[in-house]
Amino acid sequence: MEFTWFKGHGTENDFVLLPDHDGTLHGDLDPAFVAALCDRRRGIGADGVMRVVRCTALGHNSPAEWFMDYRNADGSLSQMCGNGIRVFARHLLEQGLVEGPEFPIDTRDGLKFLSVVGDEIAVDMGAFTTGTHSKVSAAGQTWEALEVHTGNPHAVAFVDRVQDAGTLLEQPAFSESVYPEGVNIEFVERRGTHHVGMRVHERGSGETRSCGTGACAAAIATARADGAHDPTEYRVDVPGGTLHVTVEPERTVLRGPARIVAGGTMEWRG
Amino acid sequence: MEFTWFKGHGTENDFVLLPDHDGTLHGDLDPAFVAALCDRRRGIGADGVMRVVRCTALGHNSPAEWFMDYRNADGSLSQMCGNGIRVFARHLLEQGLVEGPEFPIDTRDGLKFLSVVGDEIAVDMGAFTTGTHSKVSAAGQTWEALEVHTGNPHAVAFVDRVQDAGTLLEQPAFSESVYPEGVNIEFVERRGTHHVGMRVHERGSGETRSCGTGACAAAIATARADGAHDPTEYRVDVPGGTLHVTVEPERTVLRGPARIVAGGTMEWRG
Repeated sequence: MEFTWFKGHGTENDFVLLPDHDGTLHGDLDPAFVAALCDRRRGIGADGVMRVVRCTALGHNSPAEWFMDYRNADGSLSQMCGNGIRVFARHLLEQGLVEGPEFPIDTRDGLKFLSVVGDEIAVDMGAFTTGTHSKVSAAGQTWEALEVHTGNPHAVAFVDRVQDAGTLLEQPAFSESVYPEGVNIEFVERRGTHHVGMRVHERGSGETRSCGTGACAAAIATARADGAHDPTEYRVDVPGGTLHVTVEPERTVLRGPARIVAGGTMEWRG
Repeated sequence: MEFTWFKGHGTENDFVLLPDHDGTLHGDLDPAFVAALCDRRRGIGADGVMRVVRCTALGHNSPAEWFMDYRNADGSLSQMCGNGIRVFARHLLEQGLVEGPEFPIDTRDGLKFLSVVGDEIAVDMGAFTTGTHSKVSAAGQTWEALEVHTGNPHAVAFVDRVQDAGTLLEQPAFSESVYPEGVNIEFVERRGTHHVGMRVHERGSGETRSCGTGACAAAIATARADGAHDPTEYRVDVPGGTLHVTVEPERTVLRGPARIVAGGTMEWRG
């Protein structure tokens, strides 16, 4: 099995891209193949795989030409990934498959709007809601955390220093009545005006180097705490780099670096 | 910069192979390039890079046709890697660059002898010495550990269960007078006759999925404890799979799986 591939990352969330423009090459991606490819020791290694396919090839009637067929590292389907779609956009731009500086990409979570901003790429992450406060605990400490829904659930806790959350080797404790299906937990440290640092424990994945929706949730909680009503841009430092999130009253825009580091052909034996 | 590459692993020690038969393509590999390629988020990801080059291209007068130019993940030079050379041998065999079932490969640690054994590959790891007993400590416990030199220094401790060593997030404590340059520490659990389980904390790398010289050190210490004098084969289970080590009076042979999982051409942008 030989195919074209690319690898890229956005703030160290990394992805294998599989061009399949007409949907004839990879078809319905085998979850076992995706999982093997994403294995960091026995495969190539990535947080996810994105098949690059035309909407028309899938029979989608969409204003977008391209569909991001995103798979998690375990092979399961995913609707959307904020850092992934920015890397996907970079690939389309570099290969001349879209014209910038603004274009839509279709996803299982609907149409997303991308824009080139200097040497970074921004994505409109759409609507969010905020909810109640509840407690999260890690490393023997407990904090109040704000519930933020950005498509997936988040609990955002302000801490003195992000190190206070400890090693995050284990799932921090949270309210199962507020989050019956689990939650992504962000520990946020103030670093200046409209500037925070964040560490995130992702539901099912553990601590990660970056999380697009987590950065948005952190910025939303900070904007709420600041009483910000007008659109406000926050800098969010994550372990893998720096993201910027513009918080508007009912939606966020996520901006940051997105790089393709390698690409070519691959014969896969697994 | 476009080049041919392969990726393979032996018990989840993983490597990028760079064919450069005549030594004209990669020349003196740039350490920064090696480190970027080995980065598991911002690159491809591997424990090391092995340039595949003819001895004659390096001006070496060697009985071996091929030289394993091994680089650590940080870009530094390394002499030898027991799992790496077995993957290197698999590549040579698959590409028809050597005739099996026995052949030599040259390394910075001298000539090594490889052999195909069923669907596995064995390497003569050469001489070893044993030394003194000293204490190692992890997870609040202390054990006696035997000093074994297999080219690099090891301290082998027998534990009731390999889990007793805890998370191994930190360097276990050891005797700095016995090991002034640091030490690889193996925690070994008896699992049956000539069968042990092992976890290893590698000097400078932390806990790893496998370590070829570590498996040899574990088998040597077990053979010493068993009072074995004749050549004896030990099964050593590591987190990444299973290795077999034949302990002879003054040398060991390491055998195990070695697989090439992917290969092709790559344009690298880094």
